[in-house]
Amino acid sequence: MAVDNNLLEKIVSLCKRRGFIYPGSEIYGGLAGTYDYGPLGVALKNNLKNLWWKNFVTNREDMYGLDAAIIMNPKTWEASGHVAGFADPLADGQKFNTMFKTSTGAGEEANVAYLRPETAQGIFVNFKNVLDSFHPKLPFGIGQIGKAFRNEIAPRDFTFRLRELEQMEVEYFVKSDEWEKYFELWREIIQNYFAEIGLDAKHVHELEVPDGERAHYSARTIDFEFDFPFGKKELSGLAYRSDYDLKQHQEFSKQDLTYFDEESKTRFLPHVIEPSLGLDRILLAVLSSAYTEDELGGEARTYLKLNKNIAPVRLAIFPLLKNKPDLVNKAREVYQKIKTEMPNLNVQFDDNGNIGKRYRRQDEIGTPQCVTIDFQTLEDDTVTIRDRDTGDQTREKTAQLSHILAV
Amino acid sequence: MAVDNNLLEKIVSLCKRRGFIYPGSEIYGGLAGTYDYGPLGVALKNNLKNLWWKNFVTNREDMYGLDAAIIMNPKTWEASGHVAGFADPLADGQKFNTMFKTSTGAGEEANVAYLRPETAQGIFVNFKNVLDSFHPKLPFGIGQIGKAFRNEIAPRDFTFRLRELEQMEVEYFVKSDEWEKYFELWREIIQNYFAEIGLDAKHVHELEVPDGERAHYSARTIDFEFDFPFGKKELSGLAYRSDYDLKQHQEFSKQDLTYFDEESKTRFLPHVIEPSLGLDRILLAVLSSAYTEDELGGEARTYLKLNKNIAPVRLAIFPLLKNKPDLVNKAREVYQKIKTEMPNLNVQFDDNGNIGKRYRRQDEIGTPQCVTIDFQTLEDDTVTIRDRDTGDQTREKTAQLSHILAV
Repeated sequence: MAVDNNLLEKIVSLCKRRGFIYPGSEIYGGLAGTYDYGPLGVALKNNLKNLWWKNFVTNREDMYGLDAAIIMNPKTWEASGHVAGFADPLADGQKFNTMFKTSTGAGEEANVAYLRPETAQGIFVNFKNVLDSFHPKLPFGIGQIGKAFRNEIAPRDFTFRLRELEQMEVEYFVKSDEWEKYFELWREIIQNYFAEIGLDAKHVHELEVPDGERAHYSARTIDFEFDFPFGKKELSGLAYRSDYDLKQHQEFSKQDLTYFDEESKTRFLPHVIEPSLGLDRILLAVLSSAYTEDELGGEARTYLKLNKNIAPVRLAIFPLLKNKPDLVNKAREVYQKIKTEMPNLNVQFDDNGNIGKRYRRQDEIGTPQCVTIDFQTLEDDTVTIRDRDTGDQTREKTAQLSHILAV
Repeated sequence: MAVDNNLLEKIVSLCKRRGFIYPGSEIYGGLAGTYDYGPLGVALKNNLKNLWWKNFVTNREDMYGLDAAIIMNPKTWEASGHVAGFADPLADGQKFNTMFKTSTGAGEEANVAYLRPETAQGIFVNFKNVLDSFHPKLPFGIGQIGKAFRNEIAPRDFTFRLRELEQMEVEYFVKSDEWEKYFELWREIIQNYFAEIGLDAKHVHELEVPDGERAHYSARTIDFEFDFPFGKKELSGLAYRSDYDLKQHQEFSKQDLTYFDEESKTRFLPHVIEPSLGLDRILLAVLSSAYTEDELGGEARTYLKLNKNIAPVRLAIFPLLKNKPDLVNKAREVYQKIKTEMPNLNVQFDDNGNIGKRYRRQDEIGTPQCVTIDFQTLEDDTVTIRDRDTGDQTREKTAQLSHILAV
């Protein structure tokens, strides 16, 4: 994909107009590096999070979920190296730590604290807790979704470089001689997730980070890059981190963080594979992949070619005309039937404007299918189902709808 | 419920032992007013959030979801009154603002910023955006789940008074002469939610906040109180806030926040009903309601009487013995079958320890039902289903399992 600033502008504009993403605190002139997710943005984000949580955590017997606090004991960031090293060079040579600083407690008793710059450390700090509660055997992992904060000097490129962002991270604990096998496992899980949410595979690139550019403790790191409208940029990462993090926390906390291996009767610090995904970047990549302009019925149109499993509205139901009570009542009946039969499906009832406008509006927000109730419905209980991508319509029995939608 | 500090200690202990809730940054001695949700705590919290989101947002055609940033333009907090008035009195008479302060940007260009002390203002600030994207008609509302931060002088009572908390809030916009009707509607929705998540109704109390104790702009406020182990305390609130918030933001932002009413052809600021629920308090109330000690089979036991719709593990599946491959394979087969047929059900495979220990462990985390595969299963494809509350077991065909579990 060639760099196309025009495309980014179009996506930003669609996001605001249709209620996906608004500039943060917009009525006050905004706040650099923050965005607010509107009704459709939250729905899309929740779908992406739920799919990640399922694929990376709940569907796996070797995974445990976690939700650690954003404000942690500041010693955490000494151990992790962020207090000393999480810095950006400033124009005048002065170094600047990009952790947001605050303080807890009042007056004389106030203590410095930081907003976490990554969710990962919340996992390491709870490693022992999870061991004690569940006694898992290696390999096992802990997954977490949550906010992280970075006081970027120059936030930019819409939701790509933010000051407030959301991460989806796993720390997967293995025996040191098995890391290569599990590195491959997580590489595959990440790629499967990208495919499932509809990222265009030809725009996803794996970059093997070469010797000398990796952290000193990492024998292998892959950056997953994506062709964003503003160029090829990092989307996600997969790193082998050795036992660096647990070793640091063991040293700084003076707690025993070793794992007891029953087979070999030895104690050791497990090694770590870390798949780390930035939710805001993923969502922007999904929108970039989905944004399409074409011609339909001789007219130019814009639509989001979102996968069915993540579209914020899965199905829209219309009465052909809004001033015919028979049609409206029947459309309401079909709407209620679908909601009852498929309670997890996001269905929208829409009778605003004429049918052509409704189709275009649903196309623009990526609704995969629209069902229209017309006069023939009143006679034979059939409806039309229109496909977003082709505009084609087929006529189906209402009794068959939930079977058709389940696909 | 009489104040029972012993009960609170028991709940805290169970939460840590079984992986529901850990003290924040525990290996570093903790951080006052923060807690980390462990694997079962996240699962329970997600179930409570999803049910709230469904009941308060997605199942209602008059509701819109939102996810605004935690760090907002600081003018937001001048308009809301938090900069001037969100203060706690200190022992020495000095007033202390309980908003967490930080700064955005570097060096000379740094600006003061705050972590939001409530999610509500993110909604008001986006009121105009939602109007412009969706053109909703009154009454309609905007709902949000998210973190809020309060630098409490004395955080206490486990997850009751926290420095980092999670809120579930709705701002519902109405015509000024209709507020009483919609106040009653949301009162009912809140009570229905409490019932659905299994709060013991006799421990939920509505307190009509009397004249003189309400905010000056509110003609009616209800505090929902709950009999926590440490006494009767505020669980949630429902407030009529007039047009106070929109008026303040209109004044401070100089933006037109009025709504155009097509019927009367007039412009005005809608009035607001605000149902506000604290997720951490709700979860603690759920645990307090569910915590039960009884005797089963002549032995004392502890269990969580959690409703099926929120239990972190809905079903556990065991082979009777873990060293009989036939039983283990058959149990694996049943486990896979349930996972395939009911992908949204949280099912756990458990073969640790003997069957009696497994039942007790599942009781303690509130698993409503356990399925055991025994030698008879290999002959006639039936399994036992054990009920958590009574300990009773019935024998059922495996083919019938998903029908039985769907209830």
